[in-house]
Amino acid sequence: MSEFDLIRRFFTRATPGAVLGVGDDAALLQVSPGNVLAVSTDMLVCGTHFFPDADPFLLGHKTLAVNLSDLAAMGAVPRWATLAIAIPSEEEAWLERFSAGFFALAQQHGVDLVGGDTTRGPLNLCVTIFGEVPAQQALRRDGAKAGDDIWVSGELGDAALALAHLLGRIKLGEAELAACAARLHQPHPRVALGLALRGIASSAIDVSDGLLADLGHILERSNVGAEIEFDALPVSPWLRGRFQQKLALCGGDDYELCFTAPAARRAEVKRIAAQLGLPLTRIGEIVAGRGCIVHDTHGHPIDIEVEGYDHFR
Amino acid sequence: MSEFDLIRRFFTRATPGAVLGVGDDAALLQVSPGNVLAVSTDMLVCGTHFFPDADPFLLGHKTLAVNLSDLAAMGAVPRWATLAIAIPSEEEAWLERFSAGFFALAQQHGVDLVGGDTTRGPLNLCVTIFGEVPAQQALRRDGAKAGDDIWVSGELGDAALALAHLLGRIKLGEAELAACAARLHQPHPRVALGLALRGIASSAIDVSDGLLADLGHILERSNVGAEIEFDALPVSPWLRGRFQQKLALCGGDDYELCFTAPAARRAEVKRIAAQLGLPLTRIGEIVAGRGCIVHDTHGHPIDIEVEGYDHFR
Repeated sequence: MSEFDLIRRFFTRATPGAVLGVGDDAALLQVSPGNVLAVSTDMLVCGTHFFPDADPFLLGHKTLAVNLSDLAAMGAVPRWATLAIAIPSEEEAWLERFSAGFFALAQQHGVDLVGGDTTRGPLNLCVTIFGEVPAQQALRRDGAKAGDDIWVSGELGDAALALAHLLGRIKLGEAELAACAARLHQPHPRVALGLALRGIASSAIDVSDGLLADLGHILERSNVGAEIEFDALPVSPWLRGRFQQKLALCGGDDYELCFTAPAARRAEVKRIAAQLGLPLTRIGEIVAGRGCIVHDTHGHPIDIEVEGYDHFR
Repeated sequence: MSEFDLIRRFFTRATPGAVLGVGDDAALLQVSPGNVLAVSTDMLVCGTHFFPDADPFLLGHKTLAVNLSDLAAMGAVPRWATLAIAIPSEEEAWLERFSAGFFALAQQHGVDLVGGDTTRGPLNLCVTIFGEVPAQQALRRDGAKAGDDIWVSGELGDAALALAHLLGRIKLGEAELAACAARLHQPHPRVALGLALRGIASSAIDVSDGLLADLGHILERSNVGAEIEFDALPVSPWLRGRFQQKLALCGGDDYELCFTAPAARRAEVKRIAAQLGLPLTRIGEIVAGRGCIVHDTHGHPIDIEVEGYDHFR
């Protein structure tokens, strides 16, 4: 199978949303009037982001999901993606399953795969994703204000719990592992939430490196601090009460949204939660100053020695 | 040095052409009125596309250059790029030189680096590049017509000659090697040529996998054939007359443009060559039918058993 056969067979689908899709020197895309283009790139490396024996269908899903999550955090409508892939050899069964997982999620979100690159090398998956958003409505990291509520969607920490099990650091029961592994391997990007938060959230980020690390980016860009109530953190029954409950603060791979909104918008946020059937939990407050304090229900600071995931630490 | 320090230090420059650049979940880009976005992705893998001891400055140049070449072949104005990079460890001197080479070329072409990803893994460099072009003026691969001239810019084959030397297959003299190695390591994307050809060329592609392979894509997409005159191929003094002269047909990494234009536009093409100080050579003609015939000056077909570079053959 040649490189071009491979592209044709596994990575070429109709691209109804593009002026010109796969097969030329560049794809041509028409951005809708009144919108700017939101662009993000995530690279997944075998051995760093996933295990060599990862299920290729789930890996195809996750490769796109982590990119969609960035658009969700921006309040952008996903439209197009490119996929560059380095593989050690052309294993057809693997490619078949990988592309099936990728396209299944792409179809759910109306994303056209418009281009990419296919080459030989250590397994590496690099997606660039393109969405649309009116410039003034984009959910940026720099808009948080003292007094704003801090919210988080869904539940935190389960993906990290599954990873801890897979790395042999803890031992989960079968049912626990199944539930947590689904969070790790098949995250659901909160695209609908991002869109609903346009005009309501003052800032947003997706939780990929751990809540404290990611919230930290909002605080830094917005020049504010935060107070978090540890017991308010939304955690699953699997995580609650465990010694590892701090994974809700420092675990990565959650792909939930963390966002801030003025206290006056609290009812609207709760209405969005009900409409989407997605829990949205108020976990604390933006304050003047710098840094993030985590406290218990009695207001006593908890010493949290955790750091977000950093590839170079 | 943390991942974020690394991004700040080596990969964050001003992005005057972006609504929002590095540092949020996504960059925000405003496409100029009347234009569509041209998007292309190229991934360079250590050991596949470059030697592990490649000069990082030149590698930074080439990583961007091969992507700019795709925009050139589309007749698009380069505007923005994202860079995803996997590196085995944070070698500051290497990153310093790599980013210097990347940004030097980016600045020449007015390209803003608006985002990316930095992670640990086997050395892999993935750029997605964004340009602008009015949809109707894009130089596509599917517009060649029987009777059109076939043109190529610059000279072909030198990069492949340098590679043959580096792989120990041939032995070049010192001066020859220096000249050819520059073509291999520091290609000059023909962006100005692509822009000048808007409204004149009927199709275009950049020569990255070898002339015959790349012209083959035009023929396939345009449903036409071609006749090429071997002795008309523009080759350097280094390559002319050598046994390896067929590298002009099958060697990769030239990053020249191959394009077609109606015979009636011949004078305009020559004027562009003069204006740009870049040789443009008519190497043959588009014909009805399929396939590409290469013939000598007497019109006798030359049997060319060559294939373009294919990562999976």
